[in-house]
Amino acid sequence: MIRVAIVGASGYTGVELYRLLANHPHVKITCVTSRQNAGEPFEQVFPSLRGRTDLVCDPVEIGIVADKADFVFTALPHKTAMEFVPGLLAAGMKVVDLSADYRLKDAALYEAWYQPHTSPELLAEAAYGLPELYRDRIRPARLVANPGCYPTSVALALAPLLKERLIDPATLIIDSKSSASGAGRAAKVDSLFCEVNEGFKAYGVTKHRHTPEIEQTLSDLAGAPVVVNFTPHLLPINRGILSTCYADLREKTDTARLVALFAEYYRGEPFVRVQPQGSLPNVAWVRGGNQCDLGVVADPRTHRVIVVSAIDNLVKGAAGQALQNMNLMFGFPETAGLDVVPLYP
Amino acid sequence: MIRVAIVGASGYTGVELYRLLANHPHVKITCVTSRQNAGEPFEQVFPSLRGRTDLVCDPVEIGIVADKADFVFTALPHKTAMEFVPGLLAAGMKVVDLSADYRLKDAALYEAWYQPHTSPELLAEAAYGLPELYRDRIRPARLVANPGCYPTSVALALAPLLKERLIDPATLIIDSKSSASGAGRAAKVDSLFCEVNEGFKAYGVTKHRHTPEIEQTLSDLAGAPVVVNFTPHLLPINRGILSTCYADLREKTDTARLVALFAEYYRGEPFVRVQPQGSLPNVAWVRGGNQCDLGVVADPRTHRVIVVSAIDNLVKGAAGQALQNMNLMFGFPETAGLDVVPLYP
Amino acid sequence: MIRVAIVGASGYTGVELYRLLANHPHVKITCVTSRQNAGEPFEQVFPSLRGRTDLVCDPVEIGIVADKADFVFTALPHKTAMEFVPGLLAAGMKVVDLSADYRLKDAALYEAWYQPHTSPELLAEAAYGLPELYRDRIRPARLVANPGCYPTSVALALAPLLKERLIDPATLIIDSKSSASGAGRAAKVDSLFCEVNEGFKAYGVTKHRHTPEIEQTLSDLAGAPVVVNFTPHLLPINRGILSTCYADLREKTDTARLVALFAEYYRGEPFVRVQPQGSLPNVAWVRGGNQCDLGVVADPRTHRVIVVSAIDNLVKGAAGQALQNMNLMFGFPETAGLDVVPLYP
Amino acid sequence: MIRVAIVGASGYTGVELYRLLANHPHVKITCVTSRQNAGEPFEQVFPSLRGRTDLVCDPVEIGIVADKADFVFTALPHKTAMEFVPGLLAAGMKVVDLSADYRLKDAALYEAWYQPHTSPELLAEAAYGLPELYRDRIRPARLVANPGCYPTSVALALAPLLKERLIDPATLIIDSKSSASGAGRAAKVDSLFCEVNEGFKAYGVTKHRHTPEIEQTLSDLAGAPVVVNFTPHLLPINRGILSTCYADLREKTDTARLVALFAEYYRGEPFVRVQPQGSLPNVAWVRGGNQCDLGVVADPRTHRVIVVSAIDNLVKGAAGQALQNMNLMFGFPETAGLDVVPLYP
Repeated sequence: MIRVAIVGASGYTGVELYRLLANHPHVKITCVTSRQNAGEPFEQVFPSLRGRTDLVCDPVEIGIVADKADFVFTALPHKTAMEFVPGLLAAGMKVVDLSADYRLKDAALYEAWYQPHTSPELLAEAAYGLPELYRDRIRPARLVANPGCYPTSVALALAPLLKERLIDPATLIIDSKSSASGAGRAAKVDSLFCEVNEGFKAYGVTKHRHTPEIEQTLSDLAGAPVVVNFTPHLLPINRGILSTCYADLREKTDTARLVALFAEYYRGEPFVRVQPQGSLPNVAWVRGGNQCDLGVVADPRTHRVIVVSAIDNLVKGAAGQALQNMNLMFGFPETAGLDVVPLYP
Repeated sequence: MIRVAIVGASGYTGVELYRLLANHPHVKITCVTSRQNAGEPFEQVFPSLRGRTDLVCDPVEIGIVADKADFVFTALPHKTAMEFVPGLLAAGMKVVDLSADYRLKDAALYEAWYQPHTSPELLAEAAYGLPELYRDRIRPARLVANPGCYPTSVALALAPLLKERLIDPATLIIDSKSSASGAGRAAKVDSLFCEVNEGFKAYGVTKHRHTPEIEQTLSDLAGAPVVVNFTPHLLPINRGILSTCYADLREKTDTARLVALFAEYYRGEPFVRVQPQGSLPNVAWVRGGNQCDLGVVADPRTHRVIVVSAIDNLVKGAAGQALQNMNLMFGFPETAGLDVVPLYP
Repeated sequence: MIRVAIVGASGYTGVELYRLLANHPHVKITCVTSRQNAGEPFEQVFPSLRGRTDLVCDPVEIGIVADKADFVFTALPHKTAMEFVPGLLAAGMKVVDLSADYRLKDAALYEAWYQPHTSPELLAEAAYGLPELYRDRIRPARLVANPGCYPTSVALALAPLLKERLIDPATLIIDSKSSASGAGRAAKVDSLFCEVNEGFKAYGVTKHRHTPEIEQTLSDLAGAPVVVNFTPHLLPINRGILSTCYADLREKTDTARLVALFAEYYRGEPFVRVQPQGSLPNVAWVRGGNQCDLGVVADPRTHRVIVVSAIDNLVKGAAGQALQNMNLMFGFPETAGLDVVPLYP
Repeated sequence: MIRVAIVGASGYTGVELYRLLANHPHVKITCVTSRQNAGEPFEQVFPSLRGRTDLVCDPVEIGIVADKADFVFTALPHKTAMEFVPGLLAAGMKVVDLSADYRLKDAALYEAWYQPHTSPELLAEAAYGLPELYRDRIRPARLVANPGCYPTSVALALAPLLKERLIDPATLIIDSKSSASGAGRAAKVDSLFCEVNEGFKAYGVTKHRHTPEIEQTLSDLAGAPVVVNFTPHLLPINRGILSTCYADLREKTDTARLVALFAEYYRGEPFVRVQPQGSLPNVAWVRGGNQCDLGVVADPRTHRVIVVSAIDNLVKGAAGQALQNMNLMFGFPETAGLDVVPLYP
């Protein structure tokens, strides 16, 4: 039994971490922190948890966290995270950080898309927490940078094609669509029900901060620098990301062979479900689960491949993957606490 | 380990039973039947289950079911259920029937609201499967009639008040609102996305078939015949029922005392969560969980009490309660397979 | 052609007023004000209006408004409205005020539910702007208090029954459900998409501020003080209010006679649509239109009547009714600018 | 005043045509037909129209239609349309056909994607009803093929770039997202509320029937054959299509110049709204209106252009555009009946 803290627990990732960890056989949640809800019973912040928690929100202080827990999930905004994580490590704790602060390996790149980095010395050490690609680096890490939701959906969609050199990376176009929970729980007019419901829009076109993170992983897979178009859109739903990826095929192939390739590449992976030919993912099929569903189609008319991936942005795109990383770091079964069947409808 | 069949598995209750049973420690699902999907892999009918089932849908035949399973959930439409259940019992199986066919004790009442009953001899034997009220009758039963979704939400809301004789039953008004999954998965124009989304309406006013079931339980609680107004409405959401119940108070009281009364009445119940004073239920807080949330308010201006109850109609209103009944019938812990934390958001 | 100002135009009522007024044959909108968007093109605040407006938001100042317009819609929060309206009247303008500030006739009642009133001398003068009931008082008024959305839906639902003394007012129970736009466009966590979507809850139970306004009109109709239970709920939709009203019938009657009574009572009313027997309102049928749809059912089992009313809370519940009042105040055809067919789906 | 018939009026396009035509100054709707609702009052089929129509649905017969109307909108499924339209023309009527049957100029292409064509002799004569591109051919036509919803959104998005030879057509990728009303009003499990709500998926990948129609128009604009990837997706909303289009730029340029180019290209067009730099379309801003909103961004990192277009699929994507075509065919002002301000929210 390890004692776990969730730092920054009053957001959607916080409550989702709690939901999943509550049924984890080797974990006891001993601390939840929240700047704005400090002193408040956690079940009052999230009444869905009523009866399942008697924790009271602590303030966001390293001393308190280090005292109460052995392991920490930091679900803080970027910039806030990097002010907090070094202290946790110094206190001897292991950390999965869900912010963007330790995902990019290049401090200059981080600065170009975010702001100057205050603990760049940790960037090399931090393991990028995408288990399907970097399991061996995650296991021994004391700091894991949990991937962004969009980058997770994209990396898993494109890994087999890039690894096998089947596509021309220069032609990659990624059209992604995310649920509203991806925007967080802050009070903003743009996130109001009436602004989002019955609407649909692109945003951050050519400029979204997940772009360099996506390119970093795809470059690693391709073995050469990759630059992509990444266009996120906002869906009027609570959970889910669907990414539709396009690239020119380097050689003639067909859908059946690509489906077989994907199935082979992800054989044995507990959370990747390659759809059979003729079936394509729907975010509704992964709601609440840690699955990443993948579908692939070759277009004989244009000699392109289209890959569609679907995840729940709060699970495989955040809390679930964080828990998967924790399992690896402690040698627990990778699926512990994650054998949740998606909720349908 | 008991072998369990889900008969009529291609509806929303079927997939929900599968979701919950998949993580039940003492159950192995060995048979799913479906008239229209017979011969089809179940994961193809519900891709949310992909990777969690290798069952192929069987036709709806007693011989097949009796051969493969020890216990059966029948999730068939009313009328179809009563043609099927007697055979299962005759084959020595225990059954939780999720249809309306064995809920009413009075065959004439059933005939008045539905059609003639073809196995009225089972009505007396069938236990009404609302564990919080009838736990002792459920345990030894071989046939449990799983309550309707609306009646569950109403009975739990009103039981403390009727038992304690705090309200005048003649003044009871029940205004209920259900999600769209309550209408099932049949292809009907009225259930199309564009007909339901951004809409809200009352339906079945004064005539809904759950009325006699509601009155049967309330009468039992009151110790005298109760007649109510029950008005269902259709919500544009996937899951959830919220019932708002009104009645005249027999004596002067206040909200604090009523909240205390409810808390006392349901003390120790694993699935009833009485909200503290000042908080009222939201269907969003029970999504995917087996909880019934209750809130109560006394109105000093009108001397009435308002009770609000929220359940997930597919869980506590159907599959979850069915599983809770199965647990009682087999002596499993009542919460086995049901310790799911609701999904928020 | 009259010159019209919308004061407080950056909310949902503001944009809806603009939408309807843009096609009004006798109106030119010459001024829109907004505290937070002053100096910004109005089409930037609401891109739905792009190409239909070249106005720039003015600050909320009486001098500016009086200079640019002859007539004013004040769509300000309560309390702010009563600080602003007296100055407009003093400047010789006619006003339809959409806040709650001039709806209650009794300043003490206003103070009990809101705060002290700063211009109580106007309460007697202000006409309550429900044309179907008070058309004659609205025509000559210089100040019209536009009714609340809930009270509009309730008053029209119950007027025929109270006028004809068919129900016992002491038994009135009003269960209302409103869309999210009723909560306005302020940035609040409770109004976020993920908090509202797939949710449903009661709120303000026994304490909602529309209660005294409802009771004032019902008392006027009944000719005696009426006290009611009014329970609002929050629907995950953009537009619409549906109220389900219950009362004991004073004499035996049936649905056909009640439908006929309603049809007769509202004969000639351009915006009230009494549904034929067997049909009940759906908020989806009035989306974007100024209609109030009414359905009525007698319950022979309980000797109660159930009336269901549906309006678009932003149209008949706010902007449309305000425009209807303006038409009456200027002698325009009552339907001018309001002959919009509801949008379906 | 012309007498107009809507043939196939019981679908979403039918009710939308009625909504718009009801306020057209030069039109009187004299006939609505419906196979399944023949003999039923039209206001009973669509209660949103109550009070605005006293028509009774006619059966779908040429004699009846020719007798009652001078002009016909055929809103029939493809295949059914081409069995009906020749008879209308033979009877001397003008027709706007909203099906796919007369959109493709090449009968062999039609056969390849649909089925054999039964009146191929009309293909050359039929004008493709996209007024912004083919206004001069529409004016004198007696048969106009109203464009598909997706093709409308794509053609208007790409016309300026193709006309000015700014992009390489071989690199075109079109990622489109449509509301659920695009799937029509037929009772299908896939269109049920619970199947669509909170979901999002791609469908018809590489095989959607709008592909040849899109390519026909783009080829015409480019002056050479164009083959594209077109991927439609299903949005859980009632109305709206958003298309995100990608192509390689042929020369270096920037966003400001592209926005200026678009603004110039569509100068004077009443229904195309080019968004200023920094703003991109949202389907919520065109709900219920005939606008097509366009946004354009150049990506200096990839040398690609991204164009985003938004329409209401039932208005500019169907009924509104049909009405615009009718206006052109009769010499009415092009905006007659279409000066509707979009509904927000």
